[in-house]
Amino acid sequence: MVMASSQALALWVVITLTHLLSLGGGFVSCAKPCFWPSSATHDDAGCLSWRVMVEANNARGWRTVPAPCVGYVKTYMTRGQYGRDLDSVMEQVSAYVDQIAAAADGLDAWIFDIDDTCLSNLLYYQAKRFGAYDPMAFKKWASQGGCPGIPPVLGLFEALQDKGFKVFLLSGRDEETLGSCTSQNLESEGFSGYERLMMRTPEYRGQSSSLFKSAMRKQLVDEGYRIRGNVGDQWSDLQGDNVGDRVFKIPNPMYFVP
Amino acid sequence: MVMASSQALALWVVITLTHLLSLGGGFVSCAKPCFWPSSATHDDAGCLSWRVMVEANNARGWRTVPAPCVGYVKTYMTRGQYGRDLDSVMEQVSAYVDQIAAAADGLDAWIFDIDDTCLSNLLYYQAKRFGAYDPMAFKKWASQGGCPGIPPVLGLFEALQDKGFKVFLLSGRDEETLGSCTSQNLESEGFSGYERLMMRTPEYRGQSSSLFKSAMRKQLVDEGYRIRGNVGDQWSDLQGDNVGDRVFKIPNPMYFVP
Repeated sequence: MVMASSQALALWVVITLTHLLSLGGGFVSCAKPCFWPSSATHDDAGCLSWRVMVEANNARGWRTVPAPCVGYVKTYMTRGQYGRDLDSVMEQVSAYVDQIAAAADGLDAWIFDIDDTCLSNLLYYQAKRFGAYDPMAFKKWASQGGCPGIPPVLGLFEALQDKGFKVFLLSGRDEETLGSCTSQNLESEGFSGYERLMMRTPEYRGQSSSLFKSAMRKQLVDEGYRIRGNVGDQWSDLQGDNVGDRVFKIPNPMYFVP
Repeated sequence: MVMASSQALALWVVITLTHLLSLGGGFVSCAKPCFWPSSATHDDAGCLSWRVMVEANNARGWRTVPAPCVGYVKTYMTRGQYGRDLDSVMEQVSAYVDQIAAAADGLDAWIFDIDDTCLSNLLYYQAKRFGAYDPMAFKKWASQGGCPGIPPVLGLFEALQDKGFKVFLLSGRDEETLGSCTSQNLESEGFSGYERLMMRTPEYRGQSSSLFKSAMRKQLVDEGYRIRGNVGDQWSDLQGDNVGDRVFKIPNPMYFVP
């Protein structure tokens, strides 16, 4: 037992010392949640922790990118790692898709979220410096129908349809005000041939994305569809009821949707 | 629409070009899943993608750390980032714990996994160079009862008990062969005062961790407990039935348990 304790001590001295040494400038003193170091040199390590927590669904309910991480997120999104992470996730999806087949009854379904899954809002969020959600400004951006498609996701979208899966697009965007520009935007970016575009109807206004999307998925299951896969950039796309046989989390450190 | 397409092109040219340029040596040609670059310089970026996929539960069913990432995982675990990530997760748990209270009926429960949640197997996996799971060797290691405790998790474990929560330790370790050394190991590392140690009994041998742990959690819920939080290093600790009001994923790029 003494050995165990001294082992723990030795192990933790190594882990903690290297941690502390690598911090250099030390952590800023701040109220919880506080998880980034003060020194610019070491922001990246703290922001990496934060980004991984976002992807692992440990960090929830955040309203903006932490101020010390704005530059980190911009670099992440535009200098290669986001593209690399996205490609890596697509490799995992492909490996899974290779193992499954669509039955002849046409009821094997896949669900894709739209914002930052099929269509990118990077230009918008970058222009807003990854600040707080601004419903009016976002609506204006979305209504222009100019969101760029995300090519690796388009590739998957097409491959699934080629294999006989029915693809459903499920978005929390308001159908009444953004329905037609969204379908035009999808079309212009190559997302066509899908089975149904499901957007938020008036009865679901104000409801969390997670509840709204669970209700929509239940509709599909009640219609007899088997949800074989589900792709989204938010955990609220991927949790709740009838999430599907397998879910894939597309990276997104820009914003959080409950 | 033309604008949208050219925007997409411009955006993707930036993302993809920086991605390709940053690859330098290019990707190795290999069968799927293949998600790391060949050149040593750029392994870190590919291994980071892989590690984030593990934490986000996008990469599943892997049997060993990808060969090009063994050095990366060792560095991650021992040079600061693991400790930093762990502290960040503990900050998130603390922020959540601050918002909840244990009722006077004594039925508010938390669940902790043991291996690489409460007790660290880093020394074992490092000695095995993060190779494939070796049941006999692991049993030998575990039976020595010398796994170091993980101090930030011990801190949480104690804080929760101080606040009146009942803490349950839920482990896939075999009760018959590892029960007594595990409870001694926990005790020697300071994990005491918990409500119950729940380990795998003969009837659950061979069952996946996810199914076994779901069954154990159902027992607790049937006894009237409310699972307020659940902490584990594997997604199989945190998914299935009755996972709890909130789950926290402790980082672990060393191994995968289905």
